[in-house]
Amino acid sequence: MPTWCMVHAAPTLEDCRALDAADPLATLADQFEIPEGLIYLDGNSLGALPKAAATAVGRAVQQEWGQGLIRSWNDAGWIMRAQEVGDAIAPLVGAGPGELLVADSTSINLHKVLWAALSMVDMRARAHPQAAQTQRRVLLTERINFPTDRYIAQGVCDALGWTLRDAPAHELTAALAAPDVGVLMLTHVNYRSGAVHDMAALNQACAQAGVLTVWDLAHSAGAVPVNLSQAGAPADFAVGCGYKFLNGGPGAPAFVWVHPRHVNAVEQPLRGWLGHAAPFAFEQGYRPAAGIARYVCGTPPILSLTALQAGVQTLRAADPHGGMAALRAKSLSLTRTFIAAAEEAATAHGLWLLSPREDERRGSQVSWACPVKGEGGLALDGYSVMRALIARGIIGDFRAGDGTVDAPDILRFGFAPAYNTHEQAWLAAQALAQELERLAASGSAAAQRPAVT
Amino acid sequence: MPTWCMVHAAPTLEDCRALDAADPLATLADQFEIPEGLIYLDGNSLGALPKAAATAVGRAVQQEWGQGLIRSWNDAGWIMRAQEVGDAIAPLVGAGPGELLVADSTSINLHKVLWAALSMVDMRARAHPQAAQTQRRVLLTERINFPTDRYIAQGVCDALGWTLRDAPAHELTAALAAPDVGVLMLTHVNYRSGAVHDMAALNQACAQAGVLTVWDLAHSAGAVPVNLSQAGAPADFAVGCGYKFLNGGPGAPAFVWVHPRHVNAVEQPLRGWLGHAAPFAFEQGYRPAAGIARYVCGTPPILSLTALQAGVQTLRAADPHGGMAALRAKSLSLTRTFIAAAEEAATAHGLWLLSPREDERRGSQVSWACPVKGEGGLALDGYSVMRALIARGIIGDFRAGDGTVDAPDILRFGFAPAYNTHEQAWLAAQALAQELERLAASGSAAAQRPAVT
Repeated sequence: MPTWCMVHAAPTLEDCRALDAADPLATLADQFEIPEGLIYLDGNSLGALPKAAATAVGRAVQQEWGQGLIRSWNDAGWIMRAQEVGDAIAPLVGAGPGELLVADSTSINLHKVLWAALSMVDMRARAHPQAAQTQRRVLLTERINFPTDRYIAQGVCDALGWTLRDAPAHELTAALAAPDVGVLMLTHVNYRSGAVHDMAALNQACAQAGVLTVWDLAHSAGAVPVNLSQAGAPADFAVGCGYKFLNGGPGAPAFVWVHPRHVNAVEQPLRGWLGHAAPFAFEQGYRPAAGIARYVCGTPPILSLTALQAGVQTLRAADPHGGMAALRAKSLSLTRTFIAAAEEAATAHGLWLLSPREDERRGSQVSWACPVKGEGGLALDGYSVMRALIARGIIGDFRAGDGTVDAPDILRFGFAPAYNTHEQAWLAAQALAQELERLAASGSAAAQRPAVT
Repeated sequence: MPTWCMVHAAPTLEDCRALDAADPLATLADQFEIPEGLIYLDGNSLGALPKAAATAVGRAVQQEWGQGLIRSWNDAGWIMRAQEVGDAIAPLVGAGPGELLVADSTSINLHKVLWAALSMVDMRARAHPQAAQTQRRVLLTERINFPTDRYIAQGVCDALGWTLRDAPAHELTAALAAPDVGVLMLTHVNYRSGAVHDMAALNQACAQAGVLTVWDLAHSAGAVPVNLSQAGAPADFAVGCGYKFLNGGPGAPAFVWVHPRHVNAVEQPLRGWLGHAAPFAFEQGYRPAAGIARYVCGTPPILSLTALQAGVQTLRAADPHGGMAALRAKSLSLTRTFIAAAEEAATAHGLWLLSPREDERRGSQVSWACPVKGEGGLALDGYSVMRALIARGIIGDFRAGDGTVDAPDILRFGFAPAYNTHEQAWLAAQALAQELERLAASGSAAAQRPAVT
């Protein structure tokens, strides 16, 4: 292990180059195709292209589809691919072999596991009516969560007669002890702030309270270590995203995991033929497959799945160099460097650090909150700042807030330890300082925002 | 229009070559990569590779993902692609622009539209409690339907308190008149027999009976003309598959359509962020988008979607040569040719034609039913026959039955008018005759079947 950036004082470019020179994961970046001169700090939204993905997708199109045609379901192993990729992802999140698989989207997998979790609680209540406790029909979540998690959760609650309740992050432990809470659904790393929940502590508190846990690992898998199976504090259900730190390409399929002690106890609601116990027997009645295979629904998108396989394999190339622990150590060093290098200028222009300063509470991104409009008299528009950075080849993203201090506009910078460097963090911080200065001086009007921000 | 094969007498190879020489769609086949010497008759399971798909996917990987990275959501138009591909599919099935889009899998889209259809019936009943008719809470379907349709339907019925009822095809019109039937769900072209339902007649009968229709166009789209919007007999909901006659590649995403008169009246149950009225506003509460956009859930698999776009564009290259009408005319000529060329040998070995002989009732495939085991003393095993054909480079598929005359083992030959020829139909018929003869003579034992048949 090198001595990663540990100081909070602003590092110099030379400091950063020295850290990069000592980086045990430095050669990983060569396995990605990143445009010359670009500083890409949006791997938390869409991971960069692994060279192996271009090769694998080319082979899947030309040889497997073009030459093998329908025979490739057996001959090229298409039928096994979703499980194979799941097995490659599993160790990154503390899941066992055969416990996790790739299917559909994060939203759809979340629908499946939430339905299963809520149904399990209802089944238990029906099985023990004499227990006469308060009915557990509340799904608890964090107030500020990625919208799709809330939308999907509200949909499942409406369908099953549950209530969705939210609480701010610091009140979750108290809130989950309420006797009507049945399930806790959280995104492990918050998509706005990058704050990390203490999964083991929350799993333990839930187990004590008789509450099931559902984790969304979208911003964790591949960047922040997760141990779903942790002894004494295992999670119950989890889903995650394939196209962020797993580098699976745009809209890559997602993953789903259920703890083995639950997986055969309950069905998921999307009963497609490929989740059947014997899909090619073409039986008229549905019998769910044993294990996580029952969470498959229809035919997986093989080309996108193949890109994800290459993306995960590329990340797994870190295994001989320390694997997830090494990726996490480097990620923290990168975000620490960026914070230290950018903070003086950011603060001077009214930005404040939304991401936690403590390493163990910070995911693999740094979010700067923009001044709430009308506050402090600043003309600064966060979207214009990010647009100026992107024009300079420094790509982060902007997320609009709701105009309150709880959810301000943010400038978001994701750090992918597989391919980002300390030098990039330093250069990005310099550019941010310069653009803040320039825009504050010009007092320019807010820019028009496109469909996708 | 050429004079397509109209005779039922066995055609000669010269007859077939003459038909191919007069084929107005002949040049379409050049737009596909098909292995030299292979006769591919499984386009109803996985369409062949369009050359444009290889190019488009290569560009999506290297330029759009690799170089454009996150910017490609706007700059390469990823965010619009699912609707664009939907608009390209729409005219093939009689849908208007903006009414149909591509998302998820056929199974998942079927879950969405069934949920919406059943919910609509329930909403109407609640809105008019004074009507005091029999409660309509039966979902009717055809007895022999693709399993995923039945499984998904059973799941939705279980969740909403409905009953799934089936009837054989010839009793559907009578069955849908029962006062408790609320929704009819059918696959337009049966996956086993290739029999086509009369959509207009059934839509009319349903409209009269106060029943909503849900159509699965998996084996129709791109091969059999469909008019979802037909004046006086429109359908209500439809889904379809991207990887059969639309040539979208393995596991290509599917499509979904809802008649404009219903689309804003009801929500679908998978409330993902991309189906929100303002997905990038990141609102806490769900508001469904107007129109078919509310049927989007999560992020689409862009690489697989891009392949589908190329597949559909390749099929639309038939437009200047007569479009769907020309594709249908050629498809019927191909299946007629194959039946006429193969029937004598097939019948001699105890096979019988499961597909309808009447053109207007036959989809784009020919299915030969195998003798039920123990019947007629024949040793013939359908799986071994298909295996032998595949070994000779003639690719159809085998579908196991349940051992009854209603659902026999079948040999299935799909004809894709975009790239199959009459000569191929003739050669396949010859090879089938030879293999039936050889296997009957050898009395060989049934072959071991792999995971995917």
